[in-house]
Amino acid sequence: MTAADGQAGAPTDERTGDHRTTPLRVALLGCGVVGTEVVRLLTTQADDLAARTGARLELVGIAVRDTATPRDAVVDAELLTTDAEELVTRADVVIEVVGGIEPARSLLLRAIEHGASVVTANKALLAQDGPTLYAAADAAGVDVYFEAAVAGAIPIVRPVRESLAGDRVRRVLGIVNGTTNYVLDRMTSEGLDLDQAVKEAQALGYAEADPTADVEGFDAAAKAAILASLAFHTRVSIDDVDREGISAITVDDVAWAERTGYVIKLLAIAERRDEGVQVRVHPALVPLAHPLAGVRGAFNAVFVEAEAAGELMFYGRGAGGAPTASAVLGDVVSAARHRVLGGKGPVESSYADLPVLPASSARTRYQVRLDVQDRPGVLAQVAALLADHGVSIEAVRQAPAPLGPDGGDGLARLIITTHEASEESLAATVAAITGHEAVRRVLSVLRVEGV
Amino acid sequence: MTAADGQAGAPTDERTGDHRTTPLRVALLGCGVVGTEVVRLLTTQADDLAARTGARLELVGIAVRDTATPRDAVVDAELLTTDAEELVTRADVVIEVVGGIEPARSLLLRAIEHGASVVTANKALLAQDGPTLYAAADAAGVDVYFEAAVAGAIPIVRPVRESLAGDRVRRVLGIVNGTTNYVLDRMTSEGLDLDQAVKEAQALGYAEADPTADVEGFDAAAKAAILASLAFHTRVSIDDVDREGISAITVDDVAWAERTGYVIKLLAIAERRDEGVQVRVHPALVPLAHPLAGVRGAFNAVFVEAEAAGELMFYGRGAGGAPTASAVLGDVVSAARHRVLGGKGPVESSYADLPVLPASSARTRYQVRLDVQDRPGVLAQVAALLADHGVSIEAVRQAPAPLGPDGGDGLARLIITTHEASEESLAATVAAITGHEAVRRVLSVLRVEGV
Repeated sequence: MTAADGQAGAPTDERTGDHRTTPLRVALLGCGVVGTEVVRLLTTQADDLAARTGARLELVGIAVRDTATPRDAVVDAELLTTDAEELVTRADVVIEVVGGIEPARSLLLRAIEHGASVVTANKALLAQDGPTLYAAADAAGVDVYFEAAVAGAIPIVRPVRESLAGDRVRRVLGIVNGTTNYVLDRMTSEGLDLDQAVKEAQALGYAEADPTADVEGFDAAAKAAILASLAFHTRVSIDDVDREGISAITVDDVAWAERTGYVIKLLAIAERRDEGVQVRVHPALVPLAHPLAGVRGAFNAVFVEAEAAGELMFYGRGAGGAPTASAVLGDVVSAARHRVLGGKGPVESSYADLPVLPASSARTRYQVRLDVQDRPGVLAQVAALLADHGVSIEAVRQAPAPLGPDGGDGLARLIITTHEASEESLAATVAAITGHEAVRRVLSVLRVEGV
Repeated sequence: MTAADGQAGAPTDERTGDHRTTPLRVALLGCGVVGTEVVRLLTTQADDLAARTGARLELVGIAVRDTATPRDAVVDAELLTTDAEELVTRADVVIEVVGGIEPARSLLLRAIEHGASVVTANKALLAQDGPTLYAAADAAGVDVYFEAAVAGAIPIVRPVRESLAGDRVRRVLGIVNGTTNYVLDRMTSEGLDLDQAVKEAQALGYAEADPTADVEGFDAAAKAAILASLAFHTRVSIDDVDREGISAITVDDVAWAERTGYVIKLLAIAERRDEGVQVRVHPALVPLAHPLAGVRGAFNAVFVEAEAAGELMFYGRGAGGAPTASAVLGDVVSAARHRVLGGKGPVESSYADLPVLPASSARTRYQVRLDVQDRPGVLAQVAALLADHGVSIEAVRQAPAPLGPDGGDGLARLIITTHEASEESLAATVAAITGHEAVRRVLSVLRVEGV
């Protein structure tokens, strides 16, 4: 007897995989853009879903805050209810696309308690309190699936936790926020400044009226926490993620990046090191030849480095109603198949229990851009400062004349790219450089990733 | 009771997911480059695999043709046996990395009959006779996994059959043969001719001494058949795949592709159309901005267009011992988890049972390159020929002077890119063009994909 046999409401008449007479009951929490597309797929693909699942999927209710709001014609008004607490007790699979911590968390726990498998797109909840959900589901013998919570339609959760289960992931580099990728892309391709690009993203519906969650990297940090937990079989919460958004990135940064062979991307980075894991979100210079450099517009991509598999990349739409609904439905089919055929999906185990290392322990390459007095010996003095702090230089480029309003007043621009250095040494180096008499100003310090 | 309970040799003592005392017995068929890497991962990752599976994986035997061949130190000589038929009867999971149709087919069926789940990297076998294996496994209640059979380490089988199970795949475009991608890449970047590039690939170990299977597209055709079967839930065998290799591609083709904004790639294409599916392998012009255009060297990538998910791409190493072994081990963990926790993986159902359409029914864009008499009115005459055959022109480019040995003898070169046309109309058009008095020769006719 498997766990599935004892579940409340799980039909037990037949487990052959053939179409059964008893449909599986699906409850939907939330009916916004994603929820509506979920309803559409459940409706238009009903026959295919039945063939793939072994049972028809019957939508038994849609929990909403307000039943009077006008909805897409695909949504059957009779299925709407404001009583989500009751709805989750009468479903085999509960889909949550409400977002936020509460009431999503309580509703999912209640669904699990009543024997339902759950499918969620809720990155905030998983990044903050995923382990509580996983443990409850494990105890109840039901599934928790969440492909839609990271990188929208891109299958990344399933590949990392299943396809790479026999390998060791060393590093994950992800463009996991479409809004910031769109903004940086427009700054690069059109020379827009950050504000202009954000306004354009808002006009296109890529960015919220308040773009803080995207621009400051909070959204990417939640996804980084989920990816790191999966990739390294350990617990990483959003509070463990060092975060820096793109609000300080200028048109000048973007232009110089290109001139030196890079493009600026907001990256979610999770690294396995001997001592533990390090997880961070920040803008970084990515070499133009790197596969992530070609990820344009609002697309997302996750680049994975594994010991045996080598380099992998997963690319696609990271947001939007239909793409997210596609990921949700894939999870619903997996959960539903387990109801029909027995068995259950992977359990999120954090058996590795690795320490989370501070950002100051990260070792990366840097590109420092600064304006200095244009006189002999300055380059040597700056180079000596770096050497004093144990930071090794990979390349120095001196611009023929500084650009910008100060152009021609006896300044030279240096672009220094370092070899790998610790964040601590680099910070000390930059402080020393900033204080040097020949240095007018440090224009930017950007990490270089994907080399 | 699930199917797994009744399997011969499946331990039944505990199903909690905790480590069990009874290890799972793993048998390996084949100990070449991939097999040796499988042994290495089973050995070096033993603790992690146990944590992820819920049981230790014990390698109980390695079937080889000749036990005397010298092997890597990681291979325990005592596990070697020439009696594969006996070995498969005493395992919970059988891994097949022998390749070829027989004896692989009989050994896997025998393993299934004796209650083992099987993991195979055998694209030839799956493309020819997959359904026999799937049906046998379904009847026996065991798993067949084959992530390594398509695109090596890239998780593509699992995403297509599980993550996209709630969506409708419209089209798959894959660079699934690393050898030909390397060859075309070298022709493009270094101007090598085909023979030189193939010799280089052979020297690097990317191409076999007899490169026919790669160069003529047989390997890609097998993978196309598997991908099409998965994506469209129907049966496609390698015999259903229209196949054209890269042997006719010249340096001139590659150079002109680039000049007109394309790169030539050998693509495996599977399309869902209203009337059925169409599956083919041929070299094609891919627009430089398309994500597949950036796939360099021996890398593989599979681009998927789904109704709700939109465009997805999966990128990574398509061959090699360690990458392929990574994919195999991921499958082993999935199969092993089902032994421990109950349940089973997806069953390959070809419920859709779609007709396979001939290549002549395909509709694509074309680029035709031809030399014509350099006199007024010729372009109009050629354009009229296309119009007569219902082929609509997207662009005509006339080169200032033809390149090559005939340069300057009163010829002009036309590069005509068409809108979508059927293969039949195009063939008729090309025949008419070839026979026209002002046409010296048709240099090439290439399909344009990914537009």
